[in-house]
Amino acid sequence: MNEDNLLIEGRNAVIEAFRSGRTIDKLYIQDGCRDGPIQTILREAKKQDTIVTFASKERLEQLSLTRNHQGVVAQASAYGYVQVEDILARARDKGEPPFILLLDGIEDPHNLGAIIRTANLAGAHGVIIPKRRAVGLTATVVRTSAGALNYTPVAKVTNLKTTMEQLKKEGLWFVCGDMGGQEMYSLDLTGPIGLVVGSEGEGVSKLVKETCDMTAAIPMKGDIDSLNASVAAGVLAYEIVRQRMR
Amino acid sequence: MNEDNLLIEGRNAVIEAFRSGRTIDKLYIQDGCRDGPIQTILREAKKQDTIVTFASKERLEQLSLTRNHQGVVAQASAYGYVQVEDILARARDKGEPPFILLLDGIEDPHNLGAIIRTANLAGAHGVIIPKRRAVGLTATVVRTSAGALNYTPVAKVTNLKTTMEQLKKEGLWFVCGDMGGQEMYSLDLTGPIGLVVGSEGEGVSKLVKETCDMTAAIPMKGDIDSLNASVAAGVLAYEIVRQRMR
Repeated sequence: MNEDNLLIEGRNAVIEAFRSGRTIDKLYIQDGCRDGPIQTILREAKKQDTIVTFASKERLEQLSLTRNHQGVVAQASAYGYVQVEDILARARDKGEPPFILLLDGIEDPHNLGAIIRTANLAGAHGVIIPKRRAVGLTATVVRTSAGALNYTPVAKVTNLKTTMEQLKKEGLWFVCGDMGGQEMYSLDLTGPIGLVVGSEGEGVSKLVKETCDMTAAIPMKGDIDSLNASVAAGVLAYEIVRQRMR
Repeated sequence: MNEDNLLIEGRNAVIEAFRSGRTIDKLYIQDGCRDGPIQTILREAKKQDTIVTFASKERLEQLSLTRNHQGVVAQASAYGYVQVEDILARARDKGEPPFILLLDGIEDPHNLGAIIRTANLAGAHGVIIPKRRAVGLTATVVRTSAGALNYTPVAKVTNLKTTMEQLKKEGLWFVCGDMGGQEMYSLDLTGPIGLVVGSEGEGVSKLVKETCDMTAAIPMKGDIDSLNASVAAGVLAYEIVRQRMR
């Protein structure tokens, strides 16, 4: 996954990246490094609420492209993130009930790109992804989104469940896709809605599923277990589109 | 694209592959090679209706993994193909009106795999792909189909338009996905149907589009041009599922 991330290596380069306002998706610090510049980097990371991973020298060597990382490697995002409030503001500006896609741990950059593309064309106001255990806005995601990232904002949050609870106060209902749910055609998916799409392997996590108001099942008329994650997101998003158009 | 194909190199190996009944997706012969064994290979290729490409020595060197190709490189399919009649027989056996996906030039193996997966879960009886300008059943396609290839047969045809005309005689109607069409919700997509999905870059080709009875548009509420090809196939296939379930 690293080859298409924007790696920033070395203490000064990483400090500069933070100070210039670049979004850092992930920060790796070599075990045992605790000197002044590293403390500065950790302070900046804390301000930005960046995920910090302490790793062995070997792991850093493996990540590094320059072989001159000085104990610090940062993965910068290829694109800027917005705040969840910005997504709500976008719906308000358009005079539409909010329609947001929440991705519970999509790991494949091609899937994330395809889903952002779908979000754009389905008329969603934005996409929310979690900070941990999920791919960020890498160069591959930007490319496979086919320009959609220029229009459809993506917010990155620490805890999906907490964000959902905040959005519920704003009037949103949440539906997640899961084969154990009710057939999607029989649900009312109009109004302010958040569509939760699960990860490739695990689907929607337990806590997030419990926070949803509805569980929607795509009819399965075949032999295998599940659709590709971006196809499932597309089928569910377009059921919302269909119901909103009535 | 080659790295995940099954390359067979050298005269005897390729003759053996043909005689053992392996499906060869593509055959490359070095320009100027016209000796006995090459003639034998060309005869076998003709019997199987395999696409033959004559190429320069440099091109063969580039394709070759063993550096011992003797002027012949064959790309074997990772999976067997069926005949179009087998797909119709499958619908008949299930007592269902035929539902077939026809892919007009899908080139990305991840898209082809995801579409075969969708075909399985949407209850389609099979998938038809063209021999030229399209990816075949490579190892990546087998993997990304997530087991669907064990259940959903794929036929490979020389000319999509000719195949469609034959299927029309069997009572099938054809709908292709294209933004210039009628909104998909307003079309009657029940009954024996072939859904035609265009390629990633070009969409549905002119001749194939003209052979279709209907053109279905997915509502586009965003800013960019098109959905990912496998997502578009999923959204269209599930509109057919929805209408069939009524």
